This record gives sequence, C-alpha cells and structure tokens, in this order.
Amino acid sequence: MEPFVFTQLAARMVFGTGSLQLVAQEADQLGGTHVMLVHDAMAATAADTVATQLGSRLAVRWDEVAQHVPIELAERARQTATDGAVDLVICIGGGSSTGLAKAIALTHRIPILAVPTTYAGSEQTTIYGLTGERHKQTGKDHAVLPRTVVYDPALTVGLPCQISAASAFNALAHSVEALWATGCNPVTSAIALEGVRLIAHSLPIVVAAPGDLAARGDLLLGAAFSGMALGATAAGLHHKICHVLGGMFNLTHADAHSVVLAHVLAFNAPALPSEMDRLAQALGVPPGDVAGALWDLAVASHVPIKLSDLAGTGGPLQRGDLSLVADAAAAEVSTNPRPVTAADIFGLLEQAYDGLRPTAKTVARSGH
Amino acid sequence: MEPFVFTQLAARMVFGTGSLQLVAQEADQLGGTHVMLVHDAMAATAADTVATQLGSRLAVRWDEVAQHVPIELAERARQTATDGAVDLVICIGGGSSTGLAKAIALTHRIPILAVPTTYAGSEQTTIYGLTGERHKQTGKDHAVLPRTVVYDPALTVGLPCQISAASAFNALAHSVEALWATGCNPVTSAIALEGVRLIAHSLPIVVAAPGDLAARGDLLLGAAFSGMALGATAAGLHHKICHVLGGMFNLTHADAHSVVLAHVLAFNAPALPSEMDRLAQALGVPPGDVAGALWDLAVASHVPIKLSDLAGTGGPLQRGDLSLVADAAAAEVSTNPRPVTAADIFGLLEQAYDGLRPTAKTVARSGH
Repeated sequence: MEPFVFTQLAARMVFGTGSLQLVAQEADQLGGTHVMLVHDAMAATAADTVATQLGSRLAVRWDEVAQHVPIELAERARQTATDGAVDLVICIGGGSSTGLAKAIALTHRIPILAVPTTYAGSEQTTIYGLTGERHKQTGKDHAVLPRTVVYDPALTVGLPCQISAASAFNALAHSVEALWATGCNPVTSAIALEGVRLIAHSLPIVVAAPGDLAARGDLLLGAAFSGMALGATAAGLHHKICHVLGGMFNLTHADAHSVVLAHVLAFNAPALPSEMDRLAQALGVPPGDVAGALWDLAVASHVPIKLSDLAGTGGPLQRGDLSLVADAAAAEVSTNPRPVTAADIFGLLEQAYDGLRPTAKTVARSGH
Repeated sequence: MEPFVFTQLAARMVFGTGSLQLVAQEADQLGGTHVMLVHDAMAATAADTVATQLGSRLAVRWDEVAQHVPIELAERARQTATDGAVDLVICIGGGSSTGLAKAIALTHRIPILAVPTTYAGSEQTTIYGLTGERHKQTGKDHAVLPRTVVYDPALTVGLPCQISAASAFNALAHSVEALWATGCNPVTSAIALEGVRLIAHSLPIVVAAPGDLAARGDLLLGAAFSGMALGATAAGLHHKICHVLGGMFNLTHADAHSVVLAHVLAFNAPALPSEMDRLAQALGVPPGDVAGALWDLAVASHVPIKLSDLAGTGGPLQRGDLSLVADAAAAEVSTNPRPVTAADIFGLLEQAYDGLRPTAKTVARSGH
C-alpha cells in the first residue's frame, strides 16, 4: 500500500424519500436566519415546499442558474446575498444550482445546504468553477463543500431517462477513475467501489422503470459516492478525452462518457490488475470482462455507445476528427497508470467511433 | 434502502511506513505549542523520537496508562495538563493511551493527535470510557475524536503475534457487526466491508511473518476502518456476549472474540442474506460459508476457537457456566436482526464451547 494523506471534511448527509420535509430543520442546525434559496426550473415545486417551511427565515429566492456558472451571474447573485444579509444558501436542483451556491459561499464564507435533484455529485466536492468571457476559473476550497446534503429520491423521479442515464454515466466514470487517479487512497476507493456497485445495479432499473423509488435512491446515493470519490482525486484519461471532445465539438458533455469509458478502461486494464478484480466484484462480472461489462451497461441504459452517433453544434463527429482529438487529449494527460501516446488514444477512439464492444482479449491482464 | 442520517466529522489520516517522522509537523498544523505526550511502555522509543521532534513544544511527557482509564489516573493527568497549559495531546500506543488522551480532551476541549500502535481502532471513534470504584462512565463526544491520526505500520511490528491476532479479531468483529448494528448506513457499511477485507487478508500473513510491513499496514488500516465503522454504530449480539463473558469471568476481553464471532454470525445469517453476500465477497468465500470462513480465519491466526480453552482469574470456563452467560447476555441484547432468546444464545455458546466449525447448513439462507 502506498503512503497517503486523507483529510476528511465535516459533512452531514440526510437520506430518504420524504426528507425534503426536513430541510428547514436542517437549516436551523446550520444557524440559517436569512436564507437564500437557489433553485433551477425543474426544482420549482420542491423550492415552493422549502420556502413555505422557511417562512420568515427566507430572505431571497433566486431561480436564475446556468451551466458552468457565468461570472456575471455569480456576481449578481453575490450582490443579492450581500443585500439580503444572507447567512445560509440552500440550493435545490442540478449541478448548475449547486455551482451557483458554491460561487456565493466562496466569497461570502457562509454554509451551503444542498438538495440535489440530479446525479451530478458536485454537492459532495470542494470543487468550484466560474466561467468568464475569456477565462474559466476552477479550484478547490473547503468553504464550498455543502455542510449538509439532503437527498430525497422522490425529487429525482421526474428526471428524464436520457438525462438520468447520461448523468449517471458521468458519475460512474468518476467512481471508476477515482480508483487510480492522483489523490486516491483506500478510503476513497472503498467509497468509489460502492458508487460503482450502486450505479451499475440501479441504472438499468431506473431506465426501465423511472418511477422505481428504490432504484432512484440507489442511483442517487451512488452518484453521491462518486462525488465523494471525485472530490478527493483528480480527473484521469477518460475525463481528459471527454473534456477535449466536449470543448472541440461542443458536444453535450455527459453524452461522451458512456461512449468513451469502456474503451479507456480496456486500454488501462493491463496496468491495473487488482483494480480490475475489485471492479469486477462490484459489477458482478469476470475480471477479464470489466470493460465489456461497462459497454453492456451503456447498451442496457440506452445511452450512446458510438462516437459516430454524437453530434455537436457543427454536426456529427467525423472519423477524420479523431486524430485531432487524440493529439489534444494526449497533450492534456499528465499521469496515467499505463503510458499513453496520441496513437494509443487514436486507437481507442477508433474503437469508440465504431461502438465496438471491448473484448476480454483487449483487457488481457499483464503479468498473470 | 432505509432512510439514514450520517454526520461525518472532520478527521485527517496520515498513513505510511516512516510517517512517525511527520508527527511534529502535523502537531503544528493543529496549533500545538504546549504538547502533552501520552504513551505506554511499548511505545517508549517512538515517544522518544516524537519528543525530539517537538523540542521546546513538549510541555509534559506522561507514560502512566491503564486499561479502561481509571478515573483517578485521568484526574491526575488532567491536572497535569492544566498545570502545563497544554493545548494539544499526542498519544502513542494502544487503546489505553488513546483512552487517557480522550479523558483529557473531554474536559479540556483540546485536540488529540493519535499515533496508534495496536489494532484497537479507538482512535477513529468519538467513544470514551472511564472507570471508577463503583461505576463505569462511557459516552460519545465529538471532542474526543482525534483530529489527526498518524499510522506508521513500522510501529506495530513489535506487537506480539498473539496480541496482534486477538486485537485484530476484536476489530474484525466490530466491522462485521457494523454491517447491521443500529446506526449503520451505506457509508459505514462500505468502510466496514473494506475493514473485513483488509483484516481477513492480512491477519494470517502477519501471524506467519510478523515483520511483513505490507501486511502490517493492511491490518492497521483494516483496524482503522473497523474503528470508523464502530464509531457510527452500536454494539450488537456478539459484543454483548463477549462483554458478559469478560465481566463474569474476568477473561481477557479480546480472546473471546475469535471464539464467539463465527457462532453469532451463523445464528444471524438467515436474517441477513444480502449482508452475507457482501461479507462472502469481502472474504472471498461462498455466501453460505461466511461463518465457517471466520472460524477458519481464527484457526489460521492461531487464536482461541473454543470457550473451553479460555480461562479467567477463577480458572477455566466451565460448561455449566454457559446458561448463566446466556441469560445475562439475553438481558443485555436490545436489538438483533433475528429474534434471539437465552436458549438461542445457550445453543451457540455450546457450539463455541466445543469449538465446532459452523457448517453451511447452519447458515442456510432463508427465503432463497
């Protein structure tokens, strides 16, 4: 075992169907007397419920959120928080709501109570991001980690299947890569593996029966575990490739995950025999077929499995674009369990382009 | 999944061979300017090293510790801490050293930096205990959870095999029972299962080769995970029985664990099919043979497997004593996954008395 240092921050998790009813009393525990309630359009009804609970403790209600937290939006929300003498931010919604709450907490040093309604997992991390005209500011700060997170699976039932599955695959990819990413340690690995187990088990059920509350609960918790694992580690090869794909072609970020993950795993598997054993156990498949099992899970979840099926604002992704993507991704990768070249990435992108199932042969274990 | 609330406290873990060298710099991070260094006899050399590191920051060195933390001892240590204007306690040693540090932190509200040298796991809990002439005070308080724990497997190499194995079985029992004890939740279960996996894998290696640093590291981390799981949950049937055995006959507390655990598990298994599946995975055995596998582990670890082999201050335990033990334990058990009577406990104690291996038949799964 490698030496490690792991700093666990204080955090409280309230989990269960109906726990939305507990938000105001949890807010009291955090000392919230002038609360700013941030939410997205999908969470409007849940926000109504919480607003009623809060009564006179509600200082500001704010429903304008946007992906990647534009700095201009953050500045306006911050000014409103200042004007309202806000001492607690409650965010209800997906990653954009949580992101805006984090932007406020970053400057105002006030606690966040998060109520996630998607599988973003960002409510479990100290990571924040802001985007301006010409720059993107990202970082980690203890102040932006929500102090209390209330998970109510009932709030996720309305999330459409396609978004659920794509978002869940993003979470799954975080858990998988967290097993070997920089910063991983035995605590985060135990959590990440449980994230893999919960997501892989529940996702096909959610896709088949979106109203299944038990499966929705497992998926929500799995995504939370992925967030916990991600928060302690860095992004790996898979996320670098998805980032390049998204940035170059303006693809929907989450869609690339289900296409790329299995192929990155097949490439890295020979360097990660013990991690493959543990992933196989979490997935309930033979160790040699982890990559294939992730591909099967994508098929069962009705999410994209071919790069050729993905389209950005400039139209479908072309086979001729793959070498550009490979070069850009190779330049971004700083560490990987197996040495990786642009040619290697090109090779796995070709497989991903055609949507081929990674075979057991591809993931033959080295040294065994 | 059952609803749950989980409050994670802030804690830092520094793990690795040689990390004893980092104690003073970790103490600085906790703001220690007048440090009280508590240690037991076995940890004297390690304490010398830390004393040198601390230099003028060392206010008091204290090497008098005792099992169960006698209140008289705690009072003297507390007075010394007051006299020395101590603002940080560093404890190096087993459960008694950690326990005394907790007694000081409880009244003085100062942080603890713990350096465990055994598999007690108490450095990961908010549980404290003090014993007087006529009473035992136990409780939970956030203030007694060490803020930083430095794990250096090299410090455990000198721990004799018998003590290592008995102490590890105590830790293992905590991880196992944490899977269904009151207060358990998916986070603690993920940690507990990893504790089981690490201990079961490393213990036989440590017993066969006490100097194997890698196995010592795995065992130390597994014990830490057991402590984390225990801290969030309550003691179950196994620990109630061991407590009664220890109290009635003044047995060495840890010795009973390796004898009792497999039989309690065999009894509870029919009510815990999914937990048995997960334990089986962690142990690498068939689900029907979890109890037997724990019995095998005890045999491989050269720890007691028969109650008839245990002796207290009044001599060996007699078969005729078992019904007394069963009655007393039954009176202490408040919740158990399977309804349990004194007759049930008597039955499993009889099996434990003879040291019989629990059979797959005993753990036949109900409803499957």
